[in-house]
Amino acid sequence: MDGPLLTRVALIGIGLIGSSLARAMRQDGLAEHIAICTRRDSTLAEARDLGLGDSYTTDPREAVHGANLVMICAPLGAYAAIAERIGDALMPGCVVSDVGSTKTSVIRDLSPYVPDGCHLVPGHPVAGTEHSGPAAGFAELFRDRWCILTPPPGTAPEAVGLVRELWQRVGMSVETMDPEHHDKVLGITSHLPHLIAYTIVGTACALQGDIQKEVVKYSAGGFRDFTRIAASDPVMWRDIFLNNKEAVLEMLQRFTEDLTALQRAIRWGEGDVLHQHFEKTREIRRDVVEMHQAGKFIYTENGAERS
Amino acid sequence: MDGPLLTRVALIGIGLIGSSLARAMRQDGLAEHIAICTRRDSTLAEARDLGLGDSYTTDPREAVHGANLVMICAPLGAYAAIAERIGDALMPGCVVSDVGSTKTSVIRDLSPYVPDGCHLVPGHPVAGTEHSGPAAGFAELFRDRWCILTPPPGTAPEAVGLVRELWQRVGMSVETMDPEHHDKVLGITSHLPHLIAYTIVGTACALQGDIQKEVVKYSAGGFRDFTRIAASDPVMWRDIFLNNKEAVLEMLQRFTEDLTALQRAIRWGEGDVLHQHFEKTREIRRDVVEMHQAGKFIYTENGAERS
Repeated sequence: MDGPLLTRVALIGIGLIGSSLARAMRQDGLAEHIAICTRRDSTLAEARDLGLGDSYTTDPREAVHGANLVMICAPLGAYAAIAERIGDALMPGCVVSDVGSTKTSVIRDLSPYVPDGCHLVPGHPVAGTEHSGPAAGFAELFRDRWCILTPPPGTAPEAVGLVRELWQRVGMSVETMDPEHHDKVLGITSHLPHLIAYTIVGTACALQGDIQKEVVKYSAGGFRDFTRIAASDPVMWRDIFLNNKEAVLEMLQRFTEDLTALQRAIRWGEGDVLHQHFEKTREIRRDVVEMHQAGKFIYTENGAERS
Repeated sequence: MDGPLLTRVALIGIGLIGSSLARAMRQDGLAEHIAICTRRDSTLAEARDLGLGDSYTTDPREAVHGANLVMICAPLGAYAAIAERIGDALMPGCVVSDVGSTKTSVIRDLSPYVPDGCHLVPGHPVAGTEHSGPAAGFAELFRDRWCILTPPPGTAPEAVGLVRELWQRVGMSVETMDPEHHDKVLGITSHLPHLIAYTIVGTACALQGDIQKEVVKYSAGGFRDFTRIAASDPVMWRDIFLNNKEAVLEMLQRFTEDLTALQRAIRWGEGDVLHQHFEKTREIRRDVVEMHQAGKFIYTENGAERS
């Protein structure tokens, strides 16, 4: 439709999200030049083989040179070091954004290195699959999903507008939010579910003998949904939990109290308590379905495809 | 292919599983007569409108009259009362089976009422969706899934063979297992995942103010998988937890210990502990995918369809 939105965009990190964004930008001609940067030579070679960008480097300073948008798509634990490396190489007017799943930590780690005249617009496209790496990306990943921006107070509106338009052009609906609030909402909708899925799959792994094989065999009873979530990228998720500690621990405390109450109801045979609880949770599913967030993905052995 | 396997089958209960079995049996001509029995007039009328059977009654004694197979597809809490009602109305040689998700409780509740000359073959087709009621069923539900039979020691082999053949003819692979072992395996692969999903969705429901709406809006981050599981039939699941108390409480204890360990790692910022754990759980997903239990269903607003 319209011409390129960006002259040069630098993607720092090229995993599931970075490579999906690269594909979507190429498909829609959103950037004249896509510079791809990643730490590992092997990942960079993979990105090159996939033809995801226009230039490739392991040096973030080289990638951001002349870029009007820098999008950090690396694990959260790498942010501070990346920002320190690129800070004084940023072009005046450059917008620095990211795709990380926590937002207060991102502002803490990036803002000290974003110079005057550049703009920090942290963002979080709420989309993903359990697959990781450049090859796992696909241009449609973002379509009909939400993206949350958490610009610090006083951020230039045109910088926010640029990032907003980018995500809208790849199919997302964009909201802005206070970073602390973002971390709370995602703590319950994403981080806690992942922690729980990782836990239960680990609990099952630790069972002795025959039962472990059977856990896999009979996983259709509910367990397989957890194995999918618990197959997500380990480094990414380690960093999420380390960087959203307060919100996750608070939600976990509430969860544990609620689980203990149901455990007690089971032990004492309190059928009414269980039934009432289970009735209530049905309603929230209806809301999810009505909000069209229920997921029309087909999960296959080869990854998620939209139906 | 072959002729009818059964002259008369009585389905006691006609929810998701019962109605799916009725559809599959009709489709493949497995029974000359399908007698459908359910407690509520409205459900019976729905089954009749859907044309699921050959006769319809709210009286289980009438349904089982002359049946060579009685398949109980009701919530577990209704089993003992159903068995007491039908026990002396069963035809000599009749096989009594079921589709319940726990097996020791089923033997406890049914065996006192199955007379000499009749045969008890408890079974559990490990298949389902989050939808319930006669209209939610579909003939393909069982295809490529496992069915577990737990016949008590000394059960006549031809009775076990009949139930085995029925499930095989609707597409399942059939295994036999000790009932206590079944309850342990399903405790971890199905019952605990459901309990946890019900809990976290309840925890999210209880959050105050704006955050509740946002939980639905941003559910694509992981939460929506839990809402699907937590939309399952409340009565059915109440009865499962009440009837598999020991195994569920044991697995829950292990889960809680493991969750507490991860919680501690988050609090103390122990990234290595988290990373190691998250690496390990990826492997079990690979096993699930290789076992073809990963689910090739398309989840849509209208229910699950096989892709």
